[in-house]
Amino acid sequence: MSKVVIGMSMSLDGIAGGTSEEDFYVIHEAVLGWVFGLRSWQAAQGMGGGEDTADSRIWQAEFDRIGAQIVGRRMFDYGYPHWGDNPPFHNPVFVVTHRPGERIGKDGGTSYTFVTDGLASAVAQARDAARGKDVLIAGGISIAQQALAGGLADELAVHVAPVLVGTGARLFDALGAAPIGLRPEAAQLGENATHLRYRVPK
Amino acid sequence: MSKVVIGMSMSLDGIAGGTSEEDFYVIHEAVLGWVFGLRSWQAAQGMGGGEDTADSRIWQAEFDRIGAQIVGRRMFDYGYPHWGDNPPFHNPVFVVTHRPGERIGKDGGTSYTFVTDGLASAVAQARDAARGKDVLIAGGISIAQQALAGGLADELAVHVAPVLVGTGARLFDALGAAPIGLRPEAAQLGENATHLRYRVPK
Repeated sequence: MSKVVIGMSMSLDGIAGGTSEEDFYVIHEAVLGWVFGLRSWQAAQGMGGGEDTADSRIWQAEFDRIGAQIVGRRMFDYGYPHWGDNPPFHNPVFVVTHRPGERIGKDGGTSYTFVTDGLASAVAQARDAARGKDVLIAGGISIAQQALAGGLADELAVHVAPVLVGTGARLFDALGAAPIGLRPEAAQLGENATHLRYRVPK
Repeated sequence: MSKVVIGMSMSLDGIAGGTSEEDFYVIHEAVLGWVFGLRSWQAAQGMGGGEDTADSRIWQAEFDRIGAQIVGRRMFDYGYPHWGDNPPFHNPVFVVTHRPGERIGKDGGTSYTFVTDGLASAVAQARDAARGKDVLIAGGISIAQQALAGGLADELAVHVAPVLVGTGARLFDALGAAPIGLRPEAAQLGENATHLRYRVPK
């Protein structure tokens, strides 16, 4: 059966996003900067460059196992104009939102389906769409926290950027169900990030 | 030249200690529980049990490279009655404090020296005492943060306990000098913790 994986990047001090317009770009670069130069990531964007590094191969392995993705509305609204006509997902994407909308089909295997009856429903729909592959909960922070607190995830993949940001929005916060015990399953050293994987007990 | 290593345990959500009497023991067990069953750790306490696991060997390797340790006054006051006549350090320990005191010699190679002129002075004295081995800044949280913000550490070793605690005192907080960029040097998977090592640029 396909697994549900929360996959997120954070700084070593646990910051995964900005809290204001001013710090957004600084934190975005600090936390996600490790992906932009990867050959695998650039290939998913339709670009032909980038470096074939350990980070790139780890990113590719995570991409290959995924058959559907879930994102929150804020992340969708921010990303949609940038993702273009051939978006980097190459899989069905389920957007958790309060605003209904028609399904949007794109090139390269990406579609956007708007789910208005909650994250658990999005997980169920994504499982069906993933054709036996795994489901990635890709963010933002609020959706990842809901998935953890709601017991909806089987795995947690955290890409730790080697920086202490000092300020911003924490990935693990407002966890109503904490403490949550995890089982460590992998720790991989990359050039510009450290990649941790945990099983989340049900 | 000997290196100065900050070595601390934290939960995956970055908690390294309690904030109140009530949560102290729960958080202490969640964050440090991975060490109490290790053969290497038990041997340092003068006990003969424990398990020879990956975590145990990683703990031993960190212990073997250390020739002197630095702790804060609060950690010293809490630990002193428990550490006994043959304390687990087996090395000179420098206590950063505002209250002067006579050096205390103990069995098994441990001594306690009270340093009243600041952390940088404690680092210099510990380097001299370490006989070419490395210096461990062992905590608490405040001393680790001072060492980072003050640029006094060469390395950062973080033992990540596989738990989301949800509340408590964060290891990386109040970092005046942030953002601080680090260089990832190791990521090791243990049974009950994940062990990350970073170089701290000067």
